[in-house]
Amino acid sequence: MSHFEHTTWLLIVILISTKWMGYLFKRMGVSELVGELLAGVTLGHFAMSIWGFDFSADMLNNEFFQYASELGVILLLFQVGLESNIKDLLKVGLNAFSVAALGVLLPVLMGVGVSFYFAMTSDLGSWFIGATLAATSVGITAKILNDAGLIKTRSSQVILGAAVIDDVMGILLLVILASVASTGSISVSEIGVIVLKTITFFIVAVLIGKYLLSGVIKISDLNTTTGVWVAFALVLALGFAQLSAMAGLAPIIGAFMAGLILDDVHFTHSENMNIHDLQDLLKPLTDILLPIFFVGIGAQVKLNLLGDLNVLGITISLLFVAIVGKILAGIFIRGSGFDKLGIGIGMIPRGEVGLIFAAYGLKQNILSTQSYSVLVLVVLLTTILGPVLIKSRLKYF
Amino acid sequence: MSHFEHTTWLLIVILISTKWMGYLFKRMGVSELVGELLAGVTLGHFAMSIWGFDFSADMLNNEFFQYASELGVILLLFQVGLESNIKDLLKVGLNAFSVAALGVLLPVLMGVGVSFYFAMTSDLGSWFIGATLAATSVGITAKILNDAGLIKTRSSQVILGAAVIDDVMGILLLVILASVASTGSISVSEIGVIVLKTITFFIVAVLIGKYLLSGVIKISDLNTTTGVWVAFALVLALGFAQLSAMAGLAPIIGAFMAGLILDDVHFTHSENMNIHDLQDLLKPLTDILLPIFFVGIGAQVKLNLLGDLNVLGITISLLFVAIVGKILAGIFIRGSGFDKLGIGIGMIPRGEVGLIFAAYGLKQNILSTQSYSVLVLVVLLTTILGPVLIKSRLKYF
Repeated sequence: MSHFEHTTWLLIVILISTKWMGYLFKRMGVSELVGELLAGVTLGHFAMSIWGFDFSADMLNNEFFQYASELGVILLLFQVGLESNIKDLLKVGLNAFSVAALGVLLPVLMGVGVSFYFAMTSDLGSWFIGATLAATSVGITAKILNDAGLIKTRSSQVILGAAVIDDVMGILLLVILASVASTGSISVSEIGVIVLKTITFFIVAVLIGKYLLSGVIKISDLNTTTGVWVAFALVLALGFAQLSAMAGLAPIIGAFMAGLILDDVHFTHSENMNIHDLQDLLKPLTDILLPIFFVGIGAQVKLNLLGDLNVLGITISLLFVAIVGKILAGIFIRGSGFDKLGIGIGMIPRGEVGLIFAAYGLKQNILSTQSYSVLVLVVLLTTILGPVLIKSRLKYF
Repeated sequence: MSHFEHTTWLLIVILISTKWMGYLFKRMGVSELVGELLAGVTLGHFAMSIWGFDFSADMLNNEFFQYASELGVILLLFQVGLESNIKDLLKVGLNAFSVAALGVLLPVLMGVGVSFYFAMTSDLGSWFIGATLAATSVGITAKILNDAGLIKTRSSQVILGAAVIDDVMGILLLVILASVASTGSISVSEIGVIVLKTITFFIVAVLIGKYLLSGVIKISDLNTTTGVWVAFALVLALGFAQLSAMAGLAPIIGAFMAGLILDDVHFTHSENMNIHDLQDLLKPLTDILLPIFFVGIGAQVKLNLLGDLNVLGITISLLFVAIVGKILAGIFIRGSGFDKLGIGIGMIPRGEVGLIFAAYGLKQNILSTQSYSVLVLVVLLTTILGPVLIKSRLKYF
């Protein structure tokens, strides 16, 4: 079979399995993401015995799938950025900020602690394990709150605000850890340099947004007939990703910034486009690219590495830490008029950003396949438990 | 620079250059395609001296760009199929059919003749040269007729019908030539086998469309929330492409059939989708994938191989043949009430389908880089001359 044909079969299998597993899990009230990951886990384990090829290895060795996955991640972070908004971030209030900060700090530190206690991996590996537990995936909670007509309550607003902020903190953490991974060690002053770089990059991005972006949009708008806007978004996201790579930061932080600075205001210079249409326009691309990424994440999980008591202990401990860390962050909130426990529970589901950490750690050989498999499993379990728990809490919102 | 970063730079350069060259040529009243091809020609010649890398070789050796191009071609043929319609094809009338048949026969035979006369290439290569001149790219003519309010005239309808039919004939020709290319020679009975295979495949496709497709659409429709429709279209196009490859036919004929059998009727079984929304949904994908394909086509053109009198003679002869072949096909039309000359002129522009031929011939080493460069240039020139000539003819439509 030619390379083209093999890639095409893989792509067909990926698309059918992710869309169907995603659909089934969505119907069960769980996130689509869980279905897509499990499609990957299933293919990773059974493709060999059904079709006689190693799905996981074939995906890893296929440049098309590798680059498509990376493009998917870039576009995902770009969209996370689009959904965030600098002004909203600044006015989100101390409550959301404190929930976010504690909700990052506690799971990360406790995760590192669990990893140390079980002597799972290197020091750096332990930090990757902790960091994977940082960022909330708010989509599914938001959907439940919205369906219950509770999205405008103060508690819900704190959850939404905190989830955006812990994304940003999570990404910053990745920048730092990625830098440690490439240099081998890090001092406090080096962390300072990275934070400074990130802040500088952020300011440069904001300035570009303020002074150049309207011009670029005006120019792009001349081109009414062609598919210029998809290209505009892709070039912006990829361009900022390259800029941040050149500055020694992770490409995804650039993609996130690109989305963040692209504001409604800029589109007043366009007759043909606004930010919501742009999001719709990008959806067909991410509908294809992200399943490729998540299937790859799932396919690298090795369930047979999870079958001993020690690993079971690690998994339960990390899951416990992931849940309790967020709940404590909610409970420690100041003031009243919130459902503090509900806020904590609402932030339990982890998702895309955490998985990017785990995948990065595995790729760089910082995490073993075993630690990686445990992490993906923990992310999966939080995403399954989160909705169940939040539903029992809706009456307090 | 990492592989990821290099691919990303290439992608950024491709997107910016194609969208802008496309825009400029569109504004000049020429097809966007010309701009995209010239972006490729320019990058192929100047990237080395500006950035120090061989753009054309880097694209050819990059699996992501190679597969993305193939996906683009598959989706393009799928869309050509979507725009065609079996019933319309059958009732298009003898006039359009005769224009199409002659408009394929004459340029192909005359093209083969020119190639023989100048002893350009092998016998098979000569057939590829002829076949590249077969299919009309009707988009630009249709746009001009539409803008002039003349799209409903009888002459315009003949052009539109004939262009669809000559696409089908062109694709059939590719099936035959690709089979010759893989077996080395062909007898009349083998051509018969291929035609029979194609007809069988066509019938099977129509039966699948009639009896299975509504069911697949009904099932897909359950999945209301996810990006299932883009995946549906991609799986259908890729699945049929694989089927036709397995039957020993070219993958693109399968993709075309997949589009052809997907009819408005089937979508009565869907609450969430119709055929026009599906086309809109696929546009962001082709907006990114097709420029990658066309840039690659352009980048492989070597202008320095065109700089001698003999090659100039060949180019002019093939251009002449390409124009006169279509004009004669129009003039020989029976009956009255048409602008016979106008119909011929309207079919001069060649485009996507022809370029797929040329690219296939080059890839399989059937065409030399020189013959390939001549062919792409001829396609470009027909696309530039066509609109100029048709505009002078509008008053007779």
